[in-house]
Amino acid sequence: MRFSWYKRPAMSAAYEDLRTRLAEIADLSRVIGLLFWDQRTMMPPTAAPARAEQLATLNRITHERFVSEEIGRLLEEARPEEESLEYESVEASHIRVARRDYEKARRVPPELRAEMVRTAALALPAWEQARRASDFSAFLPHLERTLELRRKYVACFDKADEDYDILLDDYEPGMKTAEVRAVFDILKRELTPLVAAVAEHAEAVDDSCLAGPFPAAGQKAFEMKVLDAFGFTPESWRIDETVHPFASNGGIGDIRLTTRYREHELSVFASMHEFGHGLYEHGIAPELERTLLCRGVSLGLHESQSRMWENLVGRSRSFWRHFFPALRQEFPSLAGVDAEGFYRAVNKIEPSPIRIEADEVTYNMHIILRFELEQELLAGSLAPADVPEAWNAKMAEYLGIEVPDIADGVLQDMHWAGGHVGYFSTYTLGNVISVQIWERLKLDLPDVDERIEAGDFAALREWLRERLHRLGRMFTPKETLERVVGGPLDPGPYVAYLKAKADDLYGLSA
Amino acid sequence: MRFSWYKRPAMSAAYEDLRTRLAEIADLSRVIGLLFWDQRTMMPPTAAPARAEQLATLNRITHERFVSEEIGRLLEEARPEEESLEYESVEASHIRVARRDYEKARRVPPELRAEMVRTAALALPAWEQARRASDFSAFLPHLERTLELRRKYVACFDKADEDYDILLDDYEPGMKTAEVRAVFDILKRELTPLVAAVAEHAEAVDDSCLAGPFPAAGQKAFEMKVLDAFGFTPESWRIDETVHPFASNGGIGDIRLTTRYREHELSVFASMHEFGHGLYEHGIAPELERTLLCRGVSLGLHESQSRMWENLVGRSRSFWRHFFPALRQEFPSLAGVDAEGFYRAVNKIEPSPIRIEADEVTYNMHIILRFELEQELLAGSLAPADVPEAWNAKMAEYLGIEVPDIADGVLQDMHWAGGHVGYFSTYTLGNVISVQIWERLKLDLPDVDERIEAGDFAALREWLRERLHRLGRMFTPKETLERVVGGPLDPGPYVAYLKAKADDLYGLSA
Repeated sequence: MRFSWYKRPAMSAAYEDLRTRLAEIADLSRVIGLLFWDQRTMMPPTAAPARAEQLATLNRITHERFVSEEIGRLLEEARPEEESLEYESVEASHIRVARRDYEKARRVPPELRAEMVRTAALALPAWEQARRASDFSAFLPHLERTLELRRKYVACFDKADEDYDILLDDYEPGMKTAEVRAVFDILKRELTPLVAAVAEHAEAVDDSCLAGPFPAAGQKAFEMKVLDAFGFTPESWRIDETVHPFASNGGIGDIRLTTRYREHELSVFASMHEFGHGLYEHGIAPELERTLLCRGVSLGLHESQSRMWENLVGRSRSFWRHFFPALRQEFPSLAGVDAEGFYRAVNKIEPSPIRIEADEVTYNMHIILRFELEQELLAGSLAPADVPEAWNAKMAEYLGIEVPDIADGVLQDMHWAGGHVGYFSTYTLGNVISVQIWERLKLDLPDVDERIEAGDFAALREWLRERLHRLGRMFTPKETLERVVGGPLDPGPYVAYLKAKADDLYGLSA
Repeated sequence: MRFSWYKRPAMSAAYEDLRTRLAEIADLSRVIGLLFWDQRTMMPPTAAPARAEQLATLNRITHERFVSEEIGRLLEEARPEEESLEYESVEASHIRVARRDYEKARRVPPELRAEMVRTAALALPAWEQARRASDFSAFLPHLERTLELRRKYVACFDKADEDYDILLDDYEPGMKTAEVRAVFDILKRELTPLVAAVAEHAEAVDDSCLAGPFPAAGQKAFEMKVLDAFGFTPESWRIDETVHPFASNGGIGDIRLTTRYREHELSVFASMHEFGHGLYEHGIAPELERTLLCRGVSLGLHESQSRMWENLVGRSRSFWRHFFPALRQEFPSLAGVDAEGFYRAVNKIEPSPIRIEADEVTYNMHIILRFELEQELLAGSLAPADVPEAWNAKMAEYLGIEVPDIADGVLQDMHWAGGHVGYFSTYTLGNVISVQIWERLKLDLPDVDERIEAGDFAALREWLRERLHRLGRMFTPKETLERVVGGPLDPGPYVAYLKAKADDLYGLSA
């Protein structure tokens, strides 16, 4: 498959009709994404009610047009044509993916879909308030309702090995709970003793230099230096401020990152993370624009890209050897630190209650905890009212820490309020995959560290585009991973990476 | 009619169905507006092709859904109900206006509509290039094609008194060419000698202080002082930079202005102008949100609001008595000027080739020239190839000036390239109406000048909202004007205003 040689083959009228209809769906989805971006970055507050209506209308029209009898009929008509084409062709992939999406979308009655949207719309502000008040009971009825609806959602589909499979499939298509569990069990087994070993050498890493202050102007200037070197260009990218950083896009040539500036937090890690998401979408083959294939293939693969730029690049020694002088120039508070000391600081391993503030090692324990609780909640073996207790027990078991306040415990994440049960595990899958890809790319780019230290990211960017990004959703996540790394999901390289890094930082083998 | 007492009456199922469908159309139209705003302010350049597709898809879906048989049937079903309601009710108005829009939209075949969009998409860049090269011949075929399509468009409708009526109706519904001509003839008769008289006393006004420089930071700071006083609040408004200033909105609570900063031009006049447009949309009764009534009623009425804030407020002596000290503080180049001198400078009357740079008096001559040429072009009595000559002859006749370069002559405006023939006259209608409204409001607010001089715009804003803005499109433009000023379109007050101002500035009666 060579996209540069891609010529659209002559296709049947049915396929062309299907393609036109799906292009419309793709357009509408992009518009919805743009409105979300606007809502979080530009929209004046009093616009909220009108915006909610506009989004509801667009979502309804998009869904109605997609699940129409007409598209179903065209998908059937296109079946012989699909079979006559190579599996790897853009057209066969498009029909195949559209059919899978269509069949999933048709399963869920519009009333249930609407009820899930309504419930999330009520649960999100309730969660915000409950979190501010450290009052789990205010959120509890919303969590109960969310789980009830998730069970109804599960019931719309054919029986799976486990009910949780059906939720997971929305975020990581084709992935089974049992597969995730197998990977997470290995991580738990390997990382729990690692966390304990590091704790015994905690004094080896001093991160006091991360306290700042880091005024916003200096953060912006430094961050733009990094993003420019990575491949951010104003022709196709923008970056704005928001409360919770995210990446969004209105097309391959329209990549929008957001970040935030806080006096005691370096924005550059969030920006590098979002850059990874943006670069994935930016690298999709132009031939896939306006098809259902024009998106990252799964949340796990997407997260592998964001975590790669944030951690494998952005927390590497080579990276800071290149960029630390520029950072120190911006902030007098770093005068007494050198590149090596700063590299060590940003890699400090230390259990903490908040997931998004966790280091590379302990982060995964936060995810495993949520993955396990979600399954129990869905199965009904854990009552929603008992989640705080179960949460705190696991925090003590996996990370040895006591949750200081429920706001920083079970109420810390918005995912459940938004109805996203089954989402969390993709974060750790992303970590695992990021290192699998990194090991593979080092075979082709053995000098990647030297390139990073020279501030040259072109070969890395190009390798990722050529091997992964341009594929979009042409293949399943598993097929995609297989193509990129030559094998299935494997936590081995990730565990080895974390151990080596911890060893290097804390001298564990000594 | 009191909106504060508005209760939605019990209506038939047919009306409710119609209302839901029209709400969807209203939502989609807002989204299209937001995408346009984004395109001109935020969008990275390489997003252009994808954005064009997204807009085309949204426009097509919106149009298809609006001209559906279903809406036609519901409009018919709602007819007896409409007749049983008071003419002034929100519901009767909604049915009435929707029917009028529907009937117009149904007249134009989709192919012709698509062809007009395509032609404009080609003509706009061709115009830009022709203008840069001062080469009319490069634009000529596009102008010919545009006129040809406009004639086909006219042919879609029942015969009117004059063909031009049909084009005018798109921008100023219900207005006849003959009515505009009658008003413009008076303006021509009254203003031509005024321009000549002023020319004899040209030395009376010195505007050398407007040369600047006015650095952007100072312009922004001053402009925000003015807009804050006018009623701009960050809760509902925003202002961004763009090449050509405009106002847009995503709802009553989502008003977006744009402006531009140039070293030798004060942005505040464009900002006040756009504020007037924004305030109109912001003041529409909340009960009309998500109906087809939730927009300013015509371009003429809209322009009356922008011109009122730009000229009747923003070029008044009272305004500068209040704001000039703040302006002078920003710009050292104004050190030797006082409020009176500055007031005189910004009101200098002097013929110039460019419409958008023209003063309040000569501006109208630019419009009359275009209005006359458009009619001849549509009728075929003037060949497109002969426009430059005709243009230059009228510029000499009406303003006594020679066009230095065709880029600043017939190629100065983008309207014809965009397919907008019949649009220009609404600018002068806006001027005329603005003074009619101003005279009427002075009966209720006899101390409006004192309020402006005190920097207090609340009563003015409130009067406009109560009398005009909240009505949206409930009534026709003529009915609306009648309600606000108690009579029909009348150029008398406008002519008197211009004469008095010129007299005051240039001492003509002396």
